[in-house]
Amino acid sequence: MAEKKKVAVIGWGNIGTGVVELLYQKGIPGLELVKVCDIDLETDRGIKLPQDMLTRDWHQVVDDPGINIVIELIGGIEPAKTIQMEALRKGKNVVTANKKLLAKEGETIFKLVLELGRSIGIRASFVGAHSFIHELGLVGSEAKKYRRIYAILNGTCNYILSRMTGEGKGFEEALKGAQEEGFAEPDPTDDIQGYDTENKIRILLGLITNSYRHAGPFPVEGITEVNLQDIMYADELGYAVKLVGIIEHDNEVFNVAVHPALVPRISLLGSLQGAYNGTELEDEYGVISGLVNPGAGPYPTADAIIKDLLDIAEGRAIPIPGSAEAFSLGLPGDVQRRFYLRFSVVDQPGVLAKITDIFWKHDINIAAVIQKESASKGSVPVVMTTYLAKEGDLQAAVKKVDDLDVITAKTRIIRMLSAST
Amino acid sequence: MAEKKKVAVIGWGNIGTGVVELLYQKGIPGLELVKVCDIDLETDRGIKLPQDMLTRDWHQVVDDPGINIVIELIGGIEPAKTIQMEALRKGKNVVTANKKLLAKEGETIFKLVLELGRSIGIRASFVGAHSFIHELGLVGSEAKKYRRIYAILNGTCNYILSRMTGEGKGFEEALKGAQEEGFAEPDPTDDIQGYDTENKIRILLGLITNSYRHAGPFPVEGITEVNLQDIMYADELGYAVKLVGIIEHDNEVFNVAVHPALVPRISLLGSLQGAYNGTELEDEYGVISGLVNPGAGPYPTADAIIKDLLDIAEGRAIPIPGSAEAFSLGLPGDVQRRFYLRFSVVDQPGVLAKITDIFWKHDINIAAVIQKESASKGSVPVVMTTYLAKEGDLQAAVKKVDDLDVITAKTRIIRMLSAST
Repeated sequence: MAEKKKVAVIGWGNIGTGVVELLYQKGIPGLELVKVCDIDLETDRGIKLPQDMLTRDWHQVVDDPGINIVIELIGGIEPAKTIQMEALRKGKNVVTANKKLLAKEGETIFKLVLELGRSIGIRASFVGAHSFIHELGLVGSEAKKYRRIYAILNGTCNYILSRMTGEGKGFEEALKGAQEEGFAEPDPTDDIQGYDTENKIRILLGLITNSYRHAGPFPVEGITEVNLQDIMYADELGYAVKLVGIIEHDNEVFNVAVHPALVPRISLLGSLQGAYNGTELEDEYGVISGLVNPGAGPYPTADAIIKDLLDIAEGRAIPIPGSAEAFSLGLPGDVQRRFYLRFSVVDQPGVLAKITDIFWKHDINIAAVIQKESASKGSVPVVMTTYLAKEGDLQAAVKKVDDLDVITAKTRIIRMLSAST
Repeated sequence: MAEKKKVAVIGWGNIGTGVVELLYQKGIPGLELVKVCDIDLETDRGIKLPQDMLTRDWHQVVDDPGINIVIELIGGIEPAKTIQMEALRKGKNVVTANKKLLAKEGETIFKLVLELGRSIGIRASFVGAHSFIHELGLVGSEAKKYRRIYAILNGTCNYILSRMTGEGKGFEEALKGAQEEGFAEPDPTDDIQGYDTENKIRILLGLITNSYRHAGPFPVEGITEVNLQDIMYADELGYAVKLVGIIEHDNEVFNVAVHPALVPRISLLGSLQGAYNGTELEDEYGVISGLVNPGAGPYPTADAIIKDLLDIAEGRAIPIPGSAEAFSLGLPGDVQRRFYLRFSVVDQPGVLAKITDIFWKHDINIAAVIQKESASKGSVPVVMTTYLAKEGDLQAAVKKVDDLDVITAKTRIIRMLSAST
């Protein structure tokens, strides 16, 4: 029987409490919790730890030569970064749920991990989607490469969009409900602006390209502009509106983006309800698979952390982005998509002809149109979907349309994704 | 650099061809294909192998001391069983896609593997659902246990049911279409009668219980009785009809079954289209996750085989059912479910009252009723769904209903499953 690995937790919040419960109360063979660090040691977490296991000073963890693995759960950039770097330098392995840090400073951290020959467990940075990382474990090898990933990675956004769709609520009302029920933070910016999804997509990108090098910015759009009207039209067309993270590559050019998209309602992503996360992956052979995981929660996250700890304790390699060369991001305007468009037009004859004429000239083909008879005079919506078109062409055409004097408001554009599962 | 593991393939069919392509043409580091065995060496598989790699006699593979891993791809019980047992006894590890053999004779094979300390790779027996096995790798350990699995594991059935639903085709017509398109075998018995799903569920059961011991028979019902009319009513109620394999346990009593079920249309299982496989799992903490994988195909299967080969070559443990004690299967009549019922009744007043009266007396509560005005006289359908009821009570009530003189045909019963993702 090998000696137990000595483990310390820095950051005793919700997730930390779940981890402490599993390590200290339940007990995991091969692992021993020896230290818990937090600035707040007073709050009752429903668990009584011996005084000598507690500290407010993270240096006492990082400087302790008896500790083998440091679990960093404080989040944010600093002091989390310094803690991870110091722990690595002092011979420890690290496990973390800190996706923001890994996305923003992954180049520094992963590089150090590789240089020093240490391990860093990052399963929990996907908040429970650990089988995803597992699945991607072989990526970067020659055996298999994913050429397309469509993923719903933010439970808060999916919860809000599900509520809007299911209950006909507007964005603000649905957000407020999500906050009251604990599915959205008091400050939901990172979630609803798409930044959280962006962070996760960036970590995935590192795994897929086997490169920790920062690839420059890619388009990120959150859900704050998603309109109930668009959700209802999408529903009528057989689609659901979801916040999707996208990684597609072909000939080493990567198209990466985060934005709302219409996905078929009867599909893995389109049917995903509530706070779940879901991912559809296509490999180089065109083989498609999908994963659904809890989007959040102390138990799934704690469970991912335990899996990382066991991998480290038992000497199994944990996949992380490697030192491969940086790759090229494609131009967003070159991406081919289908588009959903909602025009606001003056209710008079000939408007549709003017729009379709512009589209015709830009080589954009229309797949479906919804224009309803209007009871009132004034501005009415016209909804169209297109066949595949280059984003640049589409944007140029819509710009021309928006300049027409029969258009009463900026046209709403939402990309469409086909789904295979 | 460790020496390459020498690998032989027995059974050079579709999957074997995929494996040979990957091992011989593409090349996988650490693995060397040295022998391919099949009774048919004439058929052109689009790949030219040296004459001395080929044999018609499996003994030449099993008896060759230079071969480390035998991939058995001939399927069926014999001679596959003898080949696997002999290979194991002669010091080789085995990789197989043979779910029928593992399900029927797993006790003998897994026992021998454990006694001799060998490995057997069984990922491919799930036809591509390898991440499923991966995910279940921790099952049997103390860390995590799945207490509920609902799975669509047969691509042929899901393809047929999708076609019936999407195109309004009857079972026979949809089956014929599936056969023409290569999604169903010329003899589809194993698929459509549910036996293929039964085999996969039995292997999963072994993994979850960590027991290779045969647990006796459980209810298995295929899709041959699924009626287009029921699919349409289900759709009207918001459900899809799917062939589902079920493993639920509580207090060490396992409820295991394979049968058609109504699942919510907007859910991972309900939205699964075509030949895909899908699984919803709930662990002991109530955390739910889901997986979607290709239901079949040479590449996914060959890929699963390669993963098993690499695990063996690199000394990683492959989870298989262990030697734990046998467990108890629950009585099917004790299972609590919701039910969909379609009665065929004489179109006259008072019939509904007679049915509901019998249900009332059996303590079965009705959730929804669909009875449409009939244009013709004679027999008309009445559809009901119930709230949770014991299967035994439901069957007793329906038996009483079927004895009524206003009932013109045997009542159709389909179980309903709630879904969480």
